[in-house]
Formats: sequence, C-alpha cells, structure tokens
Amino acid sequence: MANPTAAMLVIGDEILSGRTRDANMHYLASELTKHGIDLKEVRIVSDEASAIETAVKALSEAHDNVFTSGGIGPTHDDITADCIARAFDTPIDVREDARALLQARYDKSGQELNEARLRMARIPDGAELIENPVSIAPGFTIQNVHVMAGVPSVFQAMVASVLPGLTGGSPLLSQTLRVERGEGDIAGPLSALADDFSDLSIGSYPYQVNGVFGSNVVVRGTDGALIDAAVTRLAKELDL
Amino acid sequence: MANPTAAMLVIGDEILSGRTRDANMHYLASELTKHGIDLKEVRIVSDEASAIETAVKALSEAHDNVFTSGGIGPTHDDITADCIARAFDTPIDVREDARALLQARYDKSGQELNEARLRMARIPDGAELIENPVSIAPGFTIQNVHVMAGVPSVFQAMVASVLPGLTGGSPLLSQTLRVERGEGDIAGPLSALADDFSDLSIGSYPYQVNGVFGSNVVVRGTDGALIDAAVTRLAKELDL
Repeated sequence: MANPTAAMLVIGDEILSGRTRDANMHYLASELTKHGIDLKEVRIVSDEASAIETAVKALSEAHDNVFTSGGIGPTHDDITADCIARAFDTPIDVREDARALLQARYDKSGQELNEARLRMARIPDGAELIENPVSIAPGFTIQNVHVMAGVPSVFQAMVASVLPGLTGGSPLLSQTLRVERGEGDIAGPLSALADDFSDLSIGSYPYQVNGVFGSNVVVRGTDGALIDAAVTRLAKELDL
Repeated sequence: MANPTAAMLVIGDEILSGRTRDANMHYLASELTKHGIDLKEVRIVSDEASAIETAVKALSEAHDNVFTSGGIGPTHDDITADCIARAFDTPIDVREDARALLQARYDKSGQELNEARLRMARIPDGAELIENPVSIAPGFTIQNVHVMAGVPSVFQAMVASVLPGLTGGSPLLSQTLRVERGEGDIAGPLSALADDFSDLSIGSYPYQVNGVFGSNVVVRGTDGALIDAAVTRLAKELDL
C-alpha cells in the first residue's frame, strides 16, 4: 500500500527575498520520512492573501496532509489564519479556549493580553488546536491542514504535537553509495538497476569538489533487504 | 512600475526526503533581489514527470520568469528536459551545437561521449542554450523558462549567464531593526507604520533565543530614503 502523502506551505517573504534560509522544511522532511509519510511538494509563497489561499486549496486537495509554517503571530503581516479560513469558506473569530491559554500565559509573565496578542486566539470554526509548549499561542488543524508557527523551536514542538495523531506508513529507508566517477560513466548500470528493482527509487545526485565530478547514488524504499541487494549489486558492478 | 516577477522550480527528491538541504534557492533569491526581479514563489517537486510538467505550466503562466534547478544530467532520473518539452508541447532531440560542445569536452578529457552523456544534448525545439563554463553541458531557455543544473557551482554559473539578458527592475532594498521585545508589544506601532508607508513592505520575523523573544523588523522597498524615514520613526517610537 502506498504511504500517505504530504505537502508543505511556507509563508515567507523573508525567504523569497534571500534575507534568510528556511529552517523548517528540512526538519519536517526528515520527520515525515521517519513516520512513513511521503513529502511530495513544498511551496514557498509571499505574505499575500491570494497567494496563500490559492496554495492552501490546491495542496489540500492534492495531498493527504498539508503543513504550513509562518504568519500566525500578532503583527499586521500575520494573515495565515484568516487566509486559511477563507480558503475553507469558514468563519474565524477569537476562540475562548485559545484566549484562556494566552490569558494564563500573559498573566504569569505580567504582560498585557492586548489586542495584537489576542489575534493569536483567532481560530477558524471547526478547527482543533495544536499544542505549543514553547510559547503557548496555539496552532490549529482544520480538515487536513496543520497550521503552525514559523519560529523553528515552535514549529518543531508543533510537529511533535501533530505527528503522533497522523496515519503513518512504512518509514522510507535509504542507503547512499558515493561514486567518484562522472555520472555519464555510471548511467548505464544505474538505469539497468532501476529497471530490475522497480520497487525502489534510485537517484543520482552529482557533486563537484575541487574540479572532480562524482555522484551520490541514493537507493530508497521501504524494504531494507531489497535496498541491501541493490546497493551490493551496484557496488560490485562498479568495482567499489 | 512594478518589478518583473519570477518563480523557481526545484526538482528534488533528495530535498523532499530530508537527505539534503537545498542550496540554490537562497542564491537565486539574493541575485534576483539585486537585479530588481521579485521572486514570488518557489516550488519543490519530486522527480515525477507529471509533477514537473504541471508545475512548469502553472509557474510559466503566472510569472514573467521561471528558473528550474536539477534533473538535466545523464542518468535515468534526469527527466527535466523531456518534461519541459511536453509542458510546451514541443519536440525534443539531440541538438548539433549542444552535441559539439559535449564532444569537444569529452575529447579533451579522453572520455567517451556515450549514449548517457549524449542525453545532455537533448534540447527542446526553439530553445536557446545557457552557457555552462563549469562542466560544459548546457542549460536552455524556452519561452520564459530557464532550465538549469542542480549542482550549486553549475547552477550559479548558469544564473550568471542568464541574468544580464533579463529585464530587471529597481533593486529591492531593505533595512532590519532588531527589537528585543515580544511581537505583541510592537504590533501596534508596526501596523500604524505599515499604514503610513504603504509603498514599503514591513515584515516582522520573530525569534527566540535562550527563552527571550524578539523580532527582526524588516522594511523593504525600492526607495532608500523612504526606508530610512520609516526605520528612523520606528526606532524613535520604540525608544531604540
């Protein structure tokens, strides 16, 4: 049976402008792979309402799970929750359980739960809250979309809250063979290997270091013994 | 006048599985920002023909320029060129000028231009070659899509070949103000600032270091003096 699929939507002007590098994609990809959920697509869009809405709709229809990161804080550019509500044609307002979480947090630190902070309690109707042990303000799940924060420590905590509740599949296993030879020299054996092991995915990822070309050949699948057999055959054929 | 827009398509199973981190997105984002082209969207898809074709079509229709990375080498999993040809309903075959480039390269290094390597000379009809001073095998431009290699040194060389020929706009400038205060405390002034400086984009990117929450406020636009004025006002309002 095929594994469940997932997509990720990163809301991130700051990545598109080149100011910062995304830190959450790599983390989510690794966690999903361990959990047996196949991450099929990632989209990074700007902080524009129409771009977020269009992407959420498309990804929610095409995949079993969608994970979003970013845009759920208290400032004017945090528009993700409202966009998701519109994408699902659902009302959104401050929800009492989310407000209570925030009230307790700010009471404890002697800060005011002002109007800006209260925006973080805006949750679309019918959503479930995602726990945030780091900074309390919750994420939420609506239908198959998990809406999470962009700050990496918070994002990771939310992924840890969500993942155990999702249907996983067989963890994807892989072995890598580093071949210090041009891809053109190994393409024939690789292609034959891919034909003979059609249950495995065989990828060749070229590199260049100090003018020397080589390739990392990655064999992926859910059957460890089969991966062993494929890698052993390739190593023998290439005299490695 | 609005700047030209761009999208990037990364063909990358190895990124979606969490095995590697993408290195090209950050580079392209920075170069486009300097050149006055607004990167609006990035998609990362797996090495599946239908995923690549669908994404190329959608991005080519929605943006002025599309840049792809990955999947143009000699191995069986290098299917980008054929997918792009299908996306534009254009024939593809080995092209003589591309073959000549490869023949000269492999003659020089005493290697054989075998069937696998000859795949790198497959170019869709009507495309223009993109020069590759690093490893010779060319990329190509068809309509508004620039098809480039995934190896970072080659990708960067190809970006350098392509960018001077593209219509640029006003370089996007930015200033960052680091505020060691929770976003909830600065949301009000930020929102008022965004209202008063509607030609600028004002983003708040929260961070958490050792339990302390703060935010990098980034003011972006094409008018440096206007950015100065906005940042100066904000710093004053926040007593920084």
